[in-house]
Amino acid sequence: MAGEDTTAKARHGGREARRRERSHKATGPGRPYIVRNIPTYDVLSEENLLKIEAAADRILAETGIEFRDDDAVLGYWKAAGAKVDGTLVKFEPGMLREILKTAPAEFTQHARNPANSVQIGGRNVVFAPSYGCPFVMDLDRGRRFGTLQDFQNFIKLAQSSPWFHHSGGTICEPTDVPVNKRHLDMVYAHIRYSDRPFLGSITAEERSEDSIDMARIVFGEEFVDQNCVIMGNVNVNSPLVWDGTMTKSLRAYARAGQGSVIVPFILGGAMGPVTNAGAIAQALAETMAGCAITQLERKGAPVIFGNFLSSMSLRSGSPTFGTPEPAIGSMVIGQLARRLNLPLRCSGNFTTSKVPDAQAMTESVMSMLAAIHCGANFILHSAGFLDGLLSMSYEKFMLDADLCGALHSYLDGVKIDDNQLAVDAFAEVGPGNHFFGCAHTMANYETAFWDSETADNEPFEKWEANGSTDAATRANRLWKEKLREYQAPHLDEGIDEALKDYIAKKKASMPDAWY
Amino acid sequence: MAGEDTTAKARHGGREARRRERSHKATGPGRPYIVRNIPTYDVLSEENLLKIEAAADRILAETGIEFRDDDAVLGYWKAAGAKVDGTLVKFEPGMLREILKTAPAEFTQHARNPANSVQIGGRNVVFAPSYGCPFVMDLDRGRRFGTLQDFQNFIKLAQSSPWFHHSGGTICEPTDVPVNKRHLDMVYAHIRYSDRPFLGSITAEERSEDSIDMARIVFGEEFVDQNCVIMGNVNVNSPLVWDGTMTKSLRAYARAGQGSVIVPFILGGAMGPVTNAGAIAQALAETMAGCAITQLERKGAPVIFGNFLSSMSLRSGSPTFGTPEPAIGSMVIGQLARRLNLPLRCSGNFTTSKVPDAQAMTESVMSMLAAIHCGANFILHSAGFLDGLLSMSYEKFMLDADLCGALHSYLDGVKIDDNQLAVDAFAEVGPGNHFFGCAHTMANYETAFWDSETADNEPFEKWEANGSTDAATRANRLWKEKLREYQAPHLDEGIDEALKDYIAKKKASMPDAWY
Repeated sequence: MAGEDTTAKARHGGREARRRERSHKATGPGRPYIVRNIPTYDVLSEENLLKIEAAADRILAETGIEFRDDDAVLGYWKAAGAKVDGTLVKFEPGMLREILKTAPAEFTQHARNPANSVQIGGRNVVFAPSYGCPFVMDLDRGRRFGTLQDFQNFIKLAQSSPWFHHSGGTICEPTDVPVNKRHLDMVYAHIRYSDRPFLGSITAEERSEDSIDMARIVFGEEFVDQNCVIMGNVNVNSPLVWDGTMTKSLRAYARAGQGSVIVPFILGGAMGPVTNAGAIAQALAETMAGCAITQLERKGAPVIFGNFLSSMSLRSGSPTFGTPEPAIGSMVIGQLARRLNLPLRCSGNFTTSKVPDAQAMTESVMSMLAAIHCGANFILHSAGFLDGLLSMSYEKFMLDADLCGALHSYLDGVKIDDNQLAVDAFAEVGPGNHFFGCAHTMANYETAFWDSETADNEPFEKWEANGSTDAATRANRLWKEKLREYQAPHLDEGIDEALKDYIAKKKASMPDAWY
Repeated sequence: MAGEDTTAKARHGGREARRRERSHKATGPGRPYIVRNIPTYDVLSEENLLKIEAAADRILAETGIEFRDDDAVLGYWKAAGAKVDGTLVKFEPGMLREILKTAPAEFTQHARNPANSVQIGGRNVVFAPSYGCPFVMDLDRGRRFGTLQDFQNFIKLAQSSPWFHHSGGTICEPTDVPVNKRHLDMVYAHIRYSDRPFLGSITAEERSEDSIDMARIVFGEEFVDQNCVIMGNVNVNSPLVWDGTMTKSLRAYARAGQGSVIVPFILGGAMGPVTNAGAIAQALAETMAGCAITQLERKGAPVIFGNFLSSMSLRSGSPTFGTPEPAIGSMVIGQLARRLNLPLRCSGNFTTSKVPDAQAMTESVMSMLAAIHCGANFILHSAGFLDGLLSMSYEKFMLDADLCGALHSYLDGVKIDDNQLAVDAFAEVGPGNHFFGCAHTMANYETAFWDSETADNEPFEKWEANGSTDAATRANRLWKEKLREYQAPHLDEGIDEALKDYIAKKKASMPDAWY
């Protein structure tokens, strides 16, 4: 197993340092994660869910899935009783469900600051920033390739916000670092600038292992073997293909007892059928197969059922995001994931808009609320996307963070007790009078309503006197203010040194690769 | 009863003209209304609903509601067994529920074009434009007082869109027409420029009666007496006061067998408590009382249970809209309305933003989706609001219309049949291939996905080459294009003449009043 030497280094740091590290208090004013107080929104009947499951079973049994991995995965499938023909694997109905029974319905992903550890599954909801953009944007400089500086900035902005619970993964590609080395800088940045949980690399097996090794430096080998401290987010090559890079990475995470997020990527009309029910059946088939590999690699390894439905503009052939069909389709994915007893990942803000405008938020709120309603436990892409998921926008990040804040109150639902019902307040105030200064208002106003940081609720005249700003302009001011005010969470020096040593050695061991 | 002379005039037009009129085909490509294919989103348990109902019962029995009407309403309450003390009325638990049993659970509001008649209640959803703004805005001219020209323009824009089912009411105030005469021009404009159902005036009893008389000219007296062809939208003076103007207007509509929409206006912290459960209990009490008056006036008169929850910024004292607490609270209002077996009205797009920007659509989508999920049958304020409900924006109207379009697909839900499940398409396409040209795609692509008129889904480079527009700019182009292309629906000349005569006589009978 890679990384023995460097975890030894950490031990030198050492066990005591880690204990001190983990006793540190949460820095943010937020909750470590949300426990939803509203039910999921179940739109389909049992009868129709069974039809979708039957369709998925037929896809798995009749068309099958291709695994472009080495012999290991194909060997696993053979041993499990699947029909393997070259790289094509066909599954008897029920086989994957049986394998998935060993996966946990709920698990903890530990943060280096234990006050920030998150519980994934059940009624819990965790927000993480967006993932995977090659570009970044802001109102001052427009669109450009992302850099390590941008990457660090977004981690800092997320860490500063009480509305995220997870630091995410490849928030943007740091394109100024060689492709084969950037995972080291990314994982380090998550550890250094945030004290929340995070995702590791999945772009190659060795990069996944490096990511896990770095987590071992922080948490200790023994702890990592018994607890989930890092996860990898892997995609299906939809339709019905699992790429070897992905299966090797997810196996690396599973082997180490770490989490995997298994996500099809279906644009209806391109990587799947144009009809929602068909795309959902396909997603179920692809995701079950990926999740099952984790259990074949190591029984009980944490795994999250992922959802990424979207559609195409059938006029232009462009992908579309935040449209109504994937939004309502997500409700069904949620029902199916719960029937498998697996935690659910959904995507939050999705948009094809190139600016943080009305279109951007129309599409983003549509997809974010779908994730909320369908019962997602881990909402990746909670903040920042513009440009068909190609650009992270600083302004959009702040607008989305604000929406995440609103959703904390939304997920609290409507609480019912004597104070909430306020019957005495009516007796006090009486018909025709106002509630501004009544005892009930005074006792409750501080916690009553969520308050936006980017919305302008002032009267028109006051708004005009203040410069007639739009939300994007206010978000532009806000992210600069937040970056100026950012304070790094405490990190033990010994651990920090060990991480830097690990990175330096790894970087020295290979030439730069730029593609 | 007012209007006898002028309906006689219409008869002259006459009965045959109306028959011809009603045999005309729907002009728009849309559906007359939506039949939802997804369930409502019920967030509260039976036990907690009972607690809210009990709280409403206590408010009604212990604090009571004030009715600032003449003796008629107070007499009704006395006769019904309520405790009347001056203008304050207290109700025994269950009394209002009993009275409400004669109200229809579902009814038809007829349009002058019968293809556009809408069914209100049950699983049906009807979208109508926003209502009541003194100001209008567009990107070219900024904010200004609304005029009759603006009023007509918005009716034309709504009529041109396939995504509305109802022409609404006071879309903006035509402030260039005297206050006491504008209802005549407004009702005429709805009839002249739209062939969908509409709302009449409620700002005075005689204006309500004028509105109904004009409807009699269009539909004939006998038809109007037996069918709902017009509705009035009346507000409670929350907390717990019913103003005489409102009760007289709603009684005028009920007396004529026409519809009423009964709507509290509760900004938590001002006209109601800061806690959601209390505001909901208050809304239930106020709305039940208003709805009950319609049944005391005329048993079986159509009435809609209205919902208008919002909150205050407890920092600035400004009203806020599109925030999370009223959104989730609406789900509970929906459950309570269904337990009363009454159709439900909710508000659609709500925002305090002064421009059609990211804030505007964040708040609007939040409140519009709440209306969709909570099971609203009649969604007033579906399009146009900005500026804390003070301004109708031309651009926002187009962005909201687009959202209404998306919601048609959303409400269709996920359909399950062999074609939708597309199992054969997987066999045809196989792993790793695309679905672009497969038989299933070719057979389904035209109806597969909703297509936005205001979103830009193009790649960044193409968007840049096209002028780097934002959604508001595209909406600005679109409303001008739609107004240029607008074609008035057919209106029988005899009816038109009779309406004009009625208006001329009415206007000549009173001096201009400007406040």
